[in-house]
Amino acid sequence: MINIGLFGYGTVGHGVKELLASQKNIGVFNLKKVFDRKEKAEEIGDIYASSIKEITADNNIDTVIECMGGDELPYQAITSSLKAGKNVISSNKETISKHLKEYLALAKENHASIQFEASVGGGIPLINPLWCLSQFDQIDSLQGILNGTSNSILTEMEESQLSFNQAVSLAQQKGFAEKDPSDDLNGNDLARKGAILASLAFQAEIKPDDFTRFGIENLTPMIISTLKKAGKRIKLILLVEKKEEGILNLVLPVAFDLQAPLALVKEETNGVLIDCSKNGPLFFEGKGAGKNPTASAILQDLTRVNSNIAPSFNPDINKPKLLKELPGRFYGFHPDGRMEKLVDPSETELRSFSFICQDK
Amino acid sequence: MINIGLFGYGTVGHGVKELLASQKNIGVFNLKKVFDRKEKAEEIGDIYASSIKEITADNNIDTVIECMGGDELPYQAITSSLKAGKNVISSNKETISKHLKEYLALAKENHASIQFEASVGGGIPLINPLWCLSQFDQIDSLQGILNGTSNSILTEMEESQLSFNQAVSLAQQKGFAEKDPSDDLNGNDLARKGAILASLAFQAEIKPDDFTRFGIENLTPMIISTLKKAGKRIKLILLVEKKEEGILNLVLPVAFDLQAPLALVKEETNGVLIDCSKNGPLFFEGKGAGKNPTASAILQDLTRVNSNIAPSFNPDINKPKLLKELPGRFYGFHPDGRMEKLVDPSETELRSFSFICQDK
Repeated sequence: MINIGLFGYGTVGHGVKELLASQKNIGVFNLKKVFDRKEKAEEIGDIYASSIKEITADNNIDTVIECMGGDELPYQAITSSLKAGKNVISSNKETISKHLKEYLALAKENHASIQFEASVGGGIPLINPLWCLSQFDQIDSLQGILNGTSNSILTEMEESQLSFNQAVSLAQQKGFAEKDPSDDLNGNDLARKGAILASLAFQAEIKPDDFTRFGIENLTPMIISTLKKAGKRIKLILLVEKKEEGILNLVLPVAFDLQAPLALVKEETNGVLIDCSKNGPLFFEGKGAGKNPTASAILQDLTRVNSNIAPSFNPDINKPKLLKELPGRFYGFHPDGRMEKLVDPSETELRSFSFICQDK
Repeated sequence: MINIGLFGYGTVGHGVKELLASQKNIGVFNLKKVFDRKEKAEEIGDIYASSIKEITADNNIDTVIECMGGDELPYQAITSSLKAGKNVISSNKETISKHLKEYLALAKENHASIQFEASVGGGIPLINPLWCLSQFDQIDSLQGILNGTSNSILTEMEESQLSFNQAVSLAQQKGFAEKDPSDDLNGNDLARKGAILASLAFQAEIKPDDFTRFGIENLTPMIISTLKKAGKRIKLILLVEKKEEGILNLVLPVAFDLQAPLALVKEETNGVLIDCSKNGPLFFEGKGAGKNPTASAILQDLTRVNSNIAPSFNPDINKPKLLKELPGRFYGFHPDGRMEKLVDPSETELRSFSFICQDK
């Protein structure tokens, strides 16, 4: 059994607890202690830990999950956990982008692991694939829409012809923007995420301040419509590029052709395009934030650091029924080209045609 | 140092050797022995192994990579390696889809690991993310374009108005189709990949024969144009879906709306859409086959099974120069809306505008 200590019982912490409760390999992962402010003690119940040390000094806890946000307490929790030889999983881009080099060194020294899949791109598997790729391949460039707040504001401004301030208010109402969304709009948030991604891609310490930043605070509906007439759509982009002379680190608005993969990433969705020398271009898209996607990324890390957890296909536990129905609408074509429309057909019926396809 | 034994020195094996030579952490991974037919002994040189046993009985070899193709020799190589406690990485969808349950049980029994990221979707990180997701989340559905041969034939038929046979010949000339591409066109190849993905997604043994298959062999230009008039594009899809009553496993042509994510996956590119209950929809796109993407996926596994290999950010080895240029074409907007076009501007120049964006 893997005993887990959780730092932070906010939105993401709740998500972690809920997802842990739905684990497939029942009884493998056990949430042993949860640290948060005293006010949460009652809600947390028996497993409440009133200090960070109560978790870091517990020799029965193998792995800790940090989702407190901020930097001071997380730094304390992460460094003491690593020093105690515990594996650490964090969703906290601020503390990871600030101290990544130190955390990695501490992990190595203490034969522990530090994982942070949830710190960038929410539930999209990104950090771990990028790290694996960077070992043997050259990352030529990485372009990402990795801030849901700015992207949903841009989508609203374009699709509903809202002013910048109207779009910000709407995003706040929908829960996609914080009360003070400055860091999301001026590129600071993307610079933090960029520092983490660039550090992994190039295996060098790159900090948020190494990013040249341009924001979208002065964007107007007129600018959007001018560029739209030229067949362009604006996105706030994180761009990391390997050039012959060095590495370019930017956060800036980019006007994409309407058919470009990143131009099609809308609302609060995140998308990343990675160009590698050997592997070719890779594109990832998914939910970049929120309780469940973030908790999911944290638990992807948990599976990874406990690599002895593997599928066992125990037929007594898990023998799903395999269905033979063919649901939905279909087109059936006869050899002479005649087409018939079918709804929920049987397999035999479909096999009587020369060509069939499902309508989606 | 991690000593590696390689089974199979064909296209992918060559790619593995080349990528290993470009490893960032120099001297960590060492290719110790390579097994293949006697005719390749001279090309392989000093590290040639004339039998499978020469690798599986070598106690200094920690990890083996199997990229032979077929089933008989791979089965022998994989089972003996696992029994000897070695970690196994395989790119071979045939042997993995046939024996996954046995391989996983053997790995568990011998405290070893079996990894097969390269067996489905080439260089796209897919197997590992799916396995991590499946631990805590419910996979509601998985839809994929995971056969480059059929997809390049469909693209050619649509874009160049070729007949099915002409498109097959062209794909063969371009190296995207084998001499006998039947398994790619009738859905058998996708059923093998589907068996691997569905087994992981639902942690149950699902076999290629559990897939109901419809192919594209009888597709005609007339069918394509009929559906095109209805705003549809045909793709050959692997579909795995969790329903209340059980699991639906299909390979079939699907007519998508032109703007659907999978409709936009063209030529030999692969794309996969995974819908999860908690994490939401995820979309991955990349090169699904070929020497380098496949070798890259194999080496992603190699990084993963050796999780003690972590970034160290040694500034003596790796201190990239950070560039401050702003290359390319830009639009600069003044507060009154006037637009100026700029080429390779300085940061100061850009900061003089109210809003800027790069033109891509």
